[in-house]
This record gives sequence, structure tokens and C-alpha cells, in this order.
Amino acid sequence: MGLKPLILITNDDGVLAGGLKALIEVALDYGDVVVVAPDDSQSGMSHAITIKQPVRVDVKKEKEGLKIYSCSGTPVDCVKLALNQLLDRKPDLLLSGINHGSNASVSVLYSGTMAAAIEGGVNGIHSIGFSLLDYSQDADFTLAKDISRRVIKEVMKNGIPTDICLNVNIPVVSKGSLKGIKVCRQTKGFWKEEFVKRTDPFNRDYYWLTGYFNNNEPDAKDTDEWALKNNYASIVPIRVDYTCFDYIQELEKRTF
Amino acid sequence: MGLKPLILITNDDGVLAGGLKALIEVALDYGDVVVVAPDDSQSGMSHAITIKQPVRVDVKKEKEGLKIYSCSGTPVDCVKLALNQLLDRKPDLLLSGINHGSNASVSVLYSGTMAAAIEGGVNGIHSIGFSLLDYSQDADFTLAKDISRRVIKEVMKNGIPTDICLNVNIPVVSKGSLKGIKVCRQTKGFWKEEFVKRTDPFNRDYYWLTGYFNNNEPDAKDTDEWALKNNYASIVPIRVDYTCFDYIQELEKRTF
Repeated sequence: MGLKPLILITNDDGVLAGGLKALIEVALDYGDVVVVAPDDSQSGMSHAITIKQPVRVDVKKEKEGLKIYSCSGTPVDCVKLALNQLLDRKPDLLLSGINHGSNASVSVLYSGTMAAAIEGGVNGIHSIGFSLLDYSQDADFTLAKDISRRVIKEVMKNGIPTDICLNVNIPVVSKGSLKGIKVCRQTKGFWKEEFVKRTDPFNRDYYWLTGYFNNNEPDAKDTDEWALKNNYASIVPIRVDYTCFDYIQELEKRTF
Repeated sequence: MGLKPLILITNDDGVLAGGLKALIEVALDYGDVVVVAPDDSQSGMSHAITIKQPVRVDVKKEKEGLKIYSCSGTPVDCVKLALNQLLDRKPDLLLSGINHGSNASVSVLYSGTMAAAIEGGVNGIHSIGFSLLDYSQDADFTLAKDISRRVIKEVMKNGIPTDICLNVNIPVVSKGSLKGIKVCRQTKGFWKEEFVKRTDPFNRDYYWLTGYFNNNEPDAKDTDEWALKNNYASIVPIRVDYTCFDYIQELEKRTF
């Protein structure tokens, strides 16, 4: 230990997810790995933090170069706990995923996987979130591992600014059909919700949140959704500072 | 009804919060108001959505020009439920808050109040989040109401682009000491966590998340933290597209 790079891994599908296992396998080739992942699925938790109750952490596995913790909190709790309590030094790299399901376009707002990567960026750590466009538990991560390896290698070699993180999405295609890795912008769109209304045995209504993604610009070739539909893996640089700098000057002209 | 503007209000402190009451009082001067707010405090829930369990909604109050719903979900659930289930037309304005406590700098990432405003922006609605720098339940919202009124008036008159929302923070000062409303950028900084470790009666450890804000640039006069410390209310335009456009060209030069 000591001289090898230190890689922190988390996810939002939980410590038992196949995508996490895949990412650990890749990361072990590049450094010592510490995993702090949620006990259970935390999909859709975004940048939530646990403040009303305490969080618990258990060591699940420990061997040369790999330590795995399971945590009762959200993905961002996992990152905060790792950086401030569990690790003895700042990690050289934070990896999140590999998520079971897409985090392209506005899904980045809801994603616990990407929130963990953004939290890494806020803390000045090179951070990358990976997602495979397959929600199934037994998804095949072979291609996703290959893409992850290529992105990790490049970032470890040349770095990225610490005020951004990378959002990498991988399509479900064979290795031969993959056209490459494409740098993109986040697609403009929104999730159109269709709440399913039901009535409980006590005659009270309740709603299940369901919906579909509405792409506002399906023909824009510089977007992540377009890339994924056309057999590219997509990389979107995500800014951890949400200020709209372009609009500051205009807003200053207003009379409040 | 019908011709008056429709204003949707939510928050993350819950339907009983004093800050919500203050914002409703202001909004009623500008249109018909529908409130969909969480049953209870949802601070720190960020952009989380409820997908593992259903959400419930109850009507708490209904009179001419004002309807108040209480919802079991997160602030973003409240917005989604309002837009897709409860409202019969798209609101002209979404207001979130007035939050009990600051949402300046990186707190925008963790804030349920600001996530609701960002969700409004994603859905093409003029959206503003308001926060008063006082966490107490019985905070005095007199000045915050005055500032909110000025910002709402300006946005209803001249609009804002729908791919941004506004993050308005109000300092705890007397009206006479307020220097004005200042357009700012988000301060660079991070929350430095100090986990408090305790042991339960069964000899298992648990951690409480506590911490303090670390300002990386305390002397930068164009930041929201500086403005608030110097008796200004701050307005930061927040982009709902998280792409770092400045870095796309650089990233395209890389060999993945």
C-alpha cells in the first residue's frame, strides 16, 4: 500500500450489484481500491444526504489492495463518510457505478450514481460515473468494463479539471457494433410522469411514480441520447458549479 | 379563476413551515396559488424522487384562489405530482421556500428547495427558490417577504430563460441595513464533514453527519457568500443543464 493510487468506488444500486463488482474488477488493475457502497438500492436518491438519522457502516470484505464497506446511507453519504472518516488519505480517483440503467440527459439530476461523482468533484477529486443502458440485475458488463477501462486509463494519465466530473453511458451493443466513445453534451428533455393512481384497502388513494423520457431534440448529433441510440458510448463533462455564467450580465441589468 | 396567473408553490421544510406561509402570502398578490408541499421536513433530499414506494396526497385547505396539498414525497415528487396529476394547466411560475436556512454556494446541490426550482426549470417553468439565513422555526420573514415580492414582480414582468432558475438567499438583517439585491455566482467551497461516532446499546457504532461550510474564496466579491456576509440579498442564476460546455472541445482531443 502507499505508493499505488487510491481509488474510491461507490454506486447507487447497492453493495451486491453486478455493476459494482464489474467496476471493482477494472479498478484493481489501477490501484488500491476502497469501496463504500449503500447496503441496498438507492436509485433516484440524487444528492440526498441523511441528516435526520445516523448512518451505519460495516466492513464486508478485506484483502490485500481491496476493502469493501457497506453503508446504510445514500451514495453521497458514502462519499462523505469515506472522505472524512474511513480513508486515511484523499483518493486519487472516485468511480461510481457501473449503474444498472441509463444516466444520460436529465437523468443526471435524479441519479445517485452521478451525485456521488459530482460530490467527488466538489471535493477536488477526479470523478467518473459509469452507467450501462440495461436495468436488469444480470446485465452483461463485458463491454461496459472495456469502456470503463479506457476512460479510467485516460483520466489517470492526463487528468481532468477538478470542477467537473464525467458522465459515461454505455449502450447495449456487441463490442463489434460499438462505433466508439463520443464526447457529448447533455440532451435537453424531461421525464414525463404518468402517475398510476390506486386505492388502498382503507379507501385512500395513493400514486406510483412512472413515466417516460421526452427528448426535446432527438436529431441533435452532439447529444448523449443521440450518441447512445447510434451505438456510441457517450461522455458528458458535468460541471459541479451550477451557476449559469452566461446569464449573470443580463440579470444584472434587471431592476429588483 | 382562469385569467389570473397560476403559481405553484412548494418547499422542503414541510407544509406547516413558517417560510411556506410567508411565501403564500406574497404569492396571493400575483395570482391563484396551488401549494403542494411535503407532509414533513425533507431538508437535504436534493433532487431525490420516490420510486420504491407510492406517494400520498391530501387536500389541507381550499378557498377562492388558494389550494393547499400535503404530500408524503420529496419536494421534487411534489412538483412532478402537481404538474402531471393535480394541476389542470401548466403554472406560470414556480416558487420554492422560503427555506429556513441558507442555500448559498454548494448547498444548492443538497437542497430540496432548490431541487424543486430546478425541476421547474427542466419543465420549462419560470422558477425561483428563496432561502432565509435563519434555521429557526420562528424566524422573522418580514424582510424575506419584501425581497421575494421584488424578485417575483421582476420575473413576472420580464421573464427569465426557462433553462435557468433563480437561487435567492436573504441575510438576517434589518430592512434599513440591507444594501440591496446582488446578482452573484455560486461560491466555490465544500461542506467539511465531521462525523460524530457513537455506540448503540448493542455495541454497534453509528455516525451522525455534521459539518461546516468551507469557503474556498472568501474574498471574491462576485460570490453569493460574500454578498450575504456584506448585507446583500443574493441572486444566482442556476443552469438546469449541467454540461460543462467549456470543456467539450478539450475533452474531444483526448484518446479514449
